[in-house]
Amino acid sequence: MTRTALRRHPERAADLATVRAVLDEALHCHVGLVRDGAPVVLPTIHARIDDTLYLHGSPAAGLLRDGRKGLELCVTATIVDGLVLAKSVFSHSMNYRSVVLFGTARRVTDAPEKLAGLKAVTEHVAPGRWCAARRPTERELRETEVLALPIAEVSAKVRSGPPVEGPLDAELDVWSGVIPVSLVRGEPIPA
Amino acid sequence: MTRTALRRHPERAADLATVRAVLDEALHCHVGLVRDGAPVVLPTIHARIDDTLYLHGSPAAGLLRDGRKGLELCVTATIVDGLVLAKSVFSHSMNYRSVVLFGTARRVTDAPEKLAGLKAVTEHVAPGRWCAARRPTERELRETEVLALPIAEVSAKVRSGPPVEGPLDAELDVWSGVIPVSLVRGEPIPA
Repeated sequence: MTRTALRRHPERAADLATVRAVLDEALHCHVGLVRDGAPVVLPTIHARIDDTLYLHGSPAAGLLRDGRKGLELCVTATIVDGLVLAKSVFSHSMNYRSVVLFGTARRVTDAPEKLAGLKAVTEHVAPGRWCAARRPTERELRETEVLALPIAEVSAKVRSGPPVEGPLDAELDVWSGVIPVSLVRGEPIPA
Repeated sequence: MTRTALRRHPERAADLATVRAVLDEALHCHVGLVRDGAPVVLPTIHARIDDTLYLHGSPAAGLLRDGRKGLELCVTATIVDGLVLAKSVFSHSMNYRSVVLFGTARRVTDAPEKLAGLKAVTEHVAPGRWCAARRPTERELRETEVLALPIAEVSAKVRSGPPVEGPLDAELDVWSGVIPVSLVRGEPIPA
């Protein structure tokens, strides 16, 4: 069994188009790495260009220090779409779309690719800011590390729709359904 | 340096009250473990009772199968509060609250603790459902695994407030400020 095969609910497996869509929509991701034999999971932002995922950060950050040594990473992005309330506690679930990507990070040293990766990360979170704000100086670029990961060993998993009730539960007098959940951007607060 | 010490932005370190508040507010978390020497990060839901974190799932799920063997886990919960748009691309940031918890999972076999853990996980995501919906049967309880993790080796990190501009950027004619971000529950959709 490959590690991208879904052990549970294989019917929730999704295709590469979904992988790309989830990575593009997810505001942030969680990156896992192994440090001294133990797992470490850190939140960060990312961006996709074609089938490459870019991460960035300070060269001093633990994630970047480990990642650029060619360490294996697992990048997981999750979008929660709804709370699935069934008639039984046991059948409660979540509607979600998630991507799990395994790979070895490559440190980006090529200047154009580094700039493209940084632009993608910036535009991913705040569209339009690469043009609106002051671009990085040479020094700022040196103070920023960019890692690239091929989007190759990857899986997506999607659950959607109403609750699935057990056969004896359908007639129970309990409200069931889905409470949609979404990430909403509010009114900008000027500095 | 202990692994809960913050390597970057130590001024963002937060106290145990924040750890608890973030774990209580975060709808879900990401659990990291080491499988065949490589990191694996999976999304799941959780709940806190005092200083114990509970996870649950099918006994057949990879996470639970590995976790109950007494494997080390890293549980990370992240709440994004805002996009921080600075006058320079370099100073862009995010407002967030995150918790990183390290520990070895304990399989919960004591029936009252298992039930309390399941109730907490249910109520965490969907308050009121433990009483509203049909409770688990003996068989359903056997088909559900509960893991407990002490909230001990843990850190929280918080960034809030407006962008911090570089000294030469303050006068630039670029909009800067914060775009608040929040997870919103929509109108329930009956099944």
